[in-house]
Amino acid sequence: MDGKAIIITGGILDDIHAKTTHGLVRGTDRYEIVGVIDENFAGRDSGEVIDQKPNGIPILENIDEFFKRGIAAEYCIIGVATKGGVIPDEMKVQLRDAIIGGLSIVNGLHEFLEDIPELKALAKEAGVELIDIRKPRPKNELKFWTGDVYKVKCPIVAVLGTDCAVGKRTTARMLLQGLKEKGINAEMIYTGQTGWLCGIEYGFIFDATYNDFIGGELEHAIVSCYQEKSPDIILLEGQSSLRNPSGPAGSEYLLSGNAKGVILVHPPSRTMFKGFEDVDAKMPDLANEIELIKYYGSKTLGIALNSEDLDPESADTAKSSIQKDLNLPVNIPLLEGVNELVDALTNYISNFNNEN
Amino acid sequence: MDGKAIIITGGILDDIHAKTTHGLVRGTDRYEIVGVIDENFAGRDSGEVIDQKPNGIPILENIDEFFKRGIAAEYCIIGVATKGGVIPDEMKVQLRDAIIGGLSIVNGLHEFLEDIPELKALAKEAGVELIDIRKPRPKNELKFWTGDVYKVKCPIVAVLGTDCAVGKRTTARMLLQGLKEKGINAEMIYTGQTGWLCGIEYGFIFDATYNDFIGGELEHAIVSCYQEKSPDIILLEGQSSLRNPSGPAGSEYLLSGNAKGVILVHPPSRTMFKGFEDVDAKMPDLANEIELIKYYGSKTLGIALNSEDLDPESADTAKSSIQKDLNLPVNIPLLEGVNELVDALTNYISNFNNEN
Repeated sequence: MDGKAIIITGGILDDIHAKTTHGLVRGTDRYEIVGVIDENFAGRDSGEVIDQKPNGIPILENIDEFFKRGIAAEYCIIGVATKGGVIPDEMKVQLRDAIIGGLSIVNGLHEFLEDIPELKALAKEAGVELIDIRKPRPKNELKFWTGDVYKVKCPIVAVLGTDCAVGKRTTARMLLQGLKEKGINAEMIYTGQTGWLCGIEYGFIFDATYNDFIGGELEHAIVSCYQEKSPDIILLEGQSSLRNPSGPAGSEYLLSGNAKGVILVHPPSRTMFKGFEDVDAKMPDLANEIELIKYYGSKTLGIALNSEDLDPESADTAKSSIQKDLNLPVNIPLLEGVNELVDALTNYISNFNNEN
Repeated sequence: MDGKAIIITGGILDDIHAKTTHGLVRGTDRYEIVGVIDENFAGRDSGEVIDQKPNGIPILENIDEFFKRGIAAEYCIIGVATKGGVIPDEMKVQLRDAIIGGLSIVNGLHEFLEDIPELKALAKEAGVELIDIRKPRPKNELKFWTGDVYKVKCPIVAVLGTDCAVGKRTTARMLLQGLKEKGINAEMIYTGQTGWLCGIEYGFIFDATYNDFIGGELEHAIVSCYQEKSPDIILLEGQSSLRNPSGPAGSEYLLSGNAKGVILVHPPSRTMFKGFEDVDAKMPDLANEIELIKYYGSKTLGIALNSEDLDPESADTAKSSIQKDLNLPVNIPLLEGVNELVDALTNYISNFNNEN
């Protein structure tokens, strides 16, 4: 563990753009989260705001209040995605206060702290670190794909979604947890900054990698994990979706990552790709997405439903109808956990070992 | 036009890894190519080596011979792809001589000339430029996808392949030429360094772009081209292939680039993906690839056959059988040109305009 951390969320803690914070508050092995800074939710409990379940992590008005309360921490994490990946000016004010107060800053946005002279100078003076986790590694450290992934002898399962921001990472973490509770040696490969922030050991940041190296970096993470941990199963955190027009992704997992199994996360209430409702960007039908996955040589093992904008009854109706139509196990992770999907993965491991 | 240039090919002019040189020698609007430096083919004509048709561009032994002959040039282009995109030591020796002789260096490899202190110092002293065309633009200049591509009212056609290095760019350029000869205002978007070297106006370098910006950069190139040139059709240069395990690509063109038409380049003699024969990476069947393209909402309009490793008779047999099985126009561009495919695109433009 790196140390204690607070998260700043710029007033949007309950929004999907704070999904990095949602992930961290639900659990991280890299940091102990001791507070959230959000002026619009100050005074409440962060778990209660995000998951309707208190978690004991308080929400504070601003950095000043955090220092006044005398809570100990070493890091301040930027916990939101912003338009264009830019650090907004209001946030820079807070970062300045955090640096002066002696906190190192952790940033997963496209804009780098190191490129902001004022913050760089302040950090130097205060003797704290500026950690830009999206900064690409030097090219001579990046890997090309070789085919070594074909030598991995345990099942590789990708957690893909039919859209962005549907809970792929959260589902993957819940599956990991569920498998471990059954005594299965499961590992997970992260592909986003939140995965790194959560302390997952193997992975890379997909969207900040030069396209040429994506297959190789994914393969390298999988092969290293396999060689060093001898897992029973490796889960891959998906990004975007196979047919999201803003930046399709998914075939990399199925081909370069050789994931022959897929858990597919789907939000039944969406008809358009998130954020592109205005341009009429229609989402594909779930059954059709499963067909497409078959063209890549992979099999969908189960569906995780995202129940956003559905009351519990409608969510349940959607679940039953999908279960019946597709004859696949279905869970609504945030409402009921992932037991059926964990069972499906356990069976998949057994059959995989019998066949290989 | 930027000026006169020579190309260095490190002894592998006839190899597929010199495909940048093949493209430049076949035609570029950015440079006038006045010589090729290749110790293994010195004394011959470069067109004769590449296309069995002389083109008047001589092949010289080394940089020294080039200067001795008194040929005028301003640029020296690295015309090969290397393992890992690294500049080999033998080549650095030649680059040093070229710089000292007063030539600016043009480099499309992943390793940057600017990062080699010795060459940087020499270039400064000699007053010449080091041009690293794969160097990414600053992030704040890169574009995210917005959906503006849906406002483009002319047909967009992607030239995709079933594998890497099958002649996608060459086919696209021949189609562009053929369309222009019929009086059609056709434009092409480049997505590789050779496209830039050839002087194409709109595009970006796909494999050197951070994944998050690929959809947006592609859209921006298409929309700018459409607004500024009012073309009848826009062709997109494809990269890799939809199911190449080393780095799948293609859905970006069909979705982010909204290419509803596809010309598919296919090498019938290959059964494995190029370079991955040892790991048994099987190529998909052509008909199945066309089915996959349909899942992305696009239609294959014709096939361009790459006749490598086929004698003319076998190439012709392959052509007839594909034509018959798929009921699509087929050309073998390097043997017979692209007339049938140009006709198919012309019809596609007419129908597109009638429907829209």
